[in-house]
Amino acid sequence: MDVFERNCETLKAMLADTGVKARPHAKAHKSGYLARAQLAILGDVASGVCCQTVRELEAMVAAGVDDIFLTNQVVGPDKLRRLRAALDAAPGVVGVLVDDAAQVAALEQAVAGSSKTLDVYVEVDVGQNRCGTRPGAPAADLAATVVAADGLRFRGAHCYHGLLQHVRKTDERKAKVGGVCDGVRATLAALEAAGIGCDVVTGGGTGTFPYERDSGLYTEVQPGSFCLMDGDYLANDYDDAPFERSLAVRATVVSRPTADRAVVDRAAKESEIPNFKGSYLGRFPLVVDAGSKAVDLVSGAPTLAVGSFRSGGDEHGIIDGPGDLACGDHVELFPSHCDPCVNLHDYWVCHRGGVVEAVVPVDARGPGL
Amino acid sequence: MDVFERNCETLKAMLADTGVKARPHAKAHKSGYLARAQLAILGDVASGVCCQTVRELEAMVAAGVDDIFLTNQVVGPDKLRRLRAALDAAPGVVGVLVDDAAQVAALEQAVAGSSKTLDVYVEVDVGQNRCGTRPGAPAADLAATVVAADGLRFRGAHCYHGLLQHVRKTDERKAKVGGVCDGVRATLAALEAAGIGCDVVTGGGTGTFPYERDSGLYTEVQPGSFCLMDGDYLANDYDDAPFERSLAVRATVVSRPTADRAVVDRAAKESEIPNFKGSYLGRFPLVVDAGSKAVDLVSGAPTLAVGSFRSGGDEHGIIDGPGDLACGDHVELFPSHCDPCVNLHDYWVCHRGGVVEAVVPVDARGPGL
Repeated sequence: MDVFERNCETLKAMLADTGVKARPHAKAHKSGYLARAQLAILGDVASGVCCQTVRELEAMVAAGVDDIFLTNQVVGPDKLRRLRAALDAAPGVVGVLVDDAAQVAALEQAVAGSSKTLDVYVEVDVGQNRCGTRPGAPAADLAATVVAADGLRFRGAHCYHGLLQHVRKTDERKAKVGGVCDGVRATLAALEAAGIGCDVVTGGGTGTFPYERDSGLYTEVQPGSFCLMDGDYLANDYDDAPFERSLAVRATVVSRPTADRAVVDRAAKESEIPNFKGSYLGRFPLVVDAGSKAVDLVSGAPTLAVGSFRSGGDEHGIIDGPGDLACGDHVELFPSHCDPCVNLHDYWVCHRGGVVEAVVPVDARGPGL
Repeated sequence: MDVFERNCETLKAMLADTGVKARPHAKAHKSGYLARAQLAILGDVASGVCCQTVRELEAMVAAGVDDIFLTNQVVGPDKLRRLRAALDAAPGVVGVLVDDAAQVAALEQAVAGSSKTLDVYVEVDVGQNRCGTRPGAPAADLAATVVAADGLRFRGAHCYHGLLQHVRKTDERKAKVGGVCDGVRATLAALEAAGIGCDVVTGGGTGTFPYERDSGLYTEVQPGSFCLMDGDYLANDYDDAPFERSLAVRATVVSRPTADRAVVDRAAKESEIPNFKGSYLGRFPLVVDAGSKAVDLVSGAPTLAVGSFRSGGDEHGIIDGPGDLACGDHVELFPSHCDPCVNLHDYWVCHRGGVVEAVVPVDARGPGL
């Protein structure tokens, strides 16, 4: 919690006096408790939170967050019904994305009869090639559809390029945000030409938000991982985002082959192991109770203070290196990608210098619903 | 459910009249409901179920399974306390693995005062190089420790080689099980020399169990994925295990760029995308609401009936190919590895020909606890 809070203080300092707000993304921690902890520190620098699924929205509503922005399209009758219920239950405003006129019509129908207005942002594809309208006139055309709809308020333009977050070199990352800003400018010009006011331009993640902040175009930024950090973000060449790692998975050593076995048997067996790479020779591996069901491996293996981690399957990790650990000892694994790692777990164990101060549910956990 | 049940019938037929029992592994489906469904079909061919974590054990106890074998070491005071509680609550027998004398002492202490006896199996490393004693005398020495302990019953030898399950060629897979059997024979000889009876020799997974079945050494086999099947298992060259795919993740199309955008803009932008491989030219991608938090990607992308899947991040999948789908339409994604995919989800939607007959919790879900 000390590190988590320090990261929030750092973000606050990076935005103070810039006029650009922080809207931290809850997809990273998926916890109403941690969202409230962030907002308490960020204070006036925060405009609210982002979330990525209806379940995350429901958790943020339950946590009493005033301004919640679901940075995704909400498609299909089940999700639309839950969105409507969350809107009605929310203490403040709720926003969602659209990139198609059919979604606007479906949202209009979903909120019909509600006493609340739904905020709608047009998603502009500023280079990620995933969702979003083209910049410029297509975005303004869609915004006009929102303006004309009952029960919806056009709130602004969502201009986020996720793939840039992990471009390693600062200069290259910054230059590519320049390309993103071209799309923002074209969109703002088209909106102005159409006579549509745009209160909010939102985007930017932990890897790029200082450049969106300094663009003169964005009114808020959406970093999520900054509070936890992970191996993939720490591999960026950061001059300007001094966040620290606050997230670890604690694993227990469950098996410890003897040294002679490690040296002799394992070396002899290497040729027998399908897909085996590397060498056991001279290593003293130990096995921990954390595999692919405890630490997300899609972005690479977790790191640890001493030794290196290999997957041992769904429930096992094999650690090469540390010679002085015994069964029952613990190691801390630092994941490569915090979001999907957090998503595997049901509880946050929040500690301060090793003293647990809260165990809270990962209440927004779940598979894209 | 039709396919799931057919897979169970197939397994039953493959073991009937062989004297070798099935102990299906619950780590695949992580559901007490589905464990009971399997046992109802397998009948006398089943010796019980396997599970891999204490949480899975607790779910199998809650489901009333008579004979539950946790194929893992249970290390640390928290897990040992929960193991003891599960043993006391279980309707029948509970077993666990050991590969170290210190674990035997810890188990003896954990069950002290219980009215129940804990079954203990010695894990023998038959080539996987993960956990396990060496075959032969070291396994027998550890079994003697179990025999001497109060409250524990030495039940048998666990001889499982997980890495062989996905050796693609049948002949090669079969030949490697021959090497596994050498370790089993050495262990049985050492146990006999020590005067220790060995009731059970257990191992084998969906990829190899017909060879363990035919070895004359194994008394039971432990396939888990057979009831669901996945891309990694279906990539095996199977002559002898005709299981079918019963598991799919249903995703919804949430965004559908227009054809002109797909052809023109995307082709122009390829050079801008970090790590981009392939070409958008001539493709008409669509985006679904299933990314790495809905379908495990460690063993590769899921497949689908028409088109191909690329990750679009944690909550998005990008599908290239099908030209006739619109927002709100559904696609079925077939995962590459069923166990970690199931582990991402909270509920099984059990249907028969599209008609839902049960929605049951993935009650054993969780991160290695």
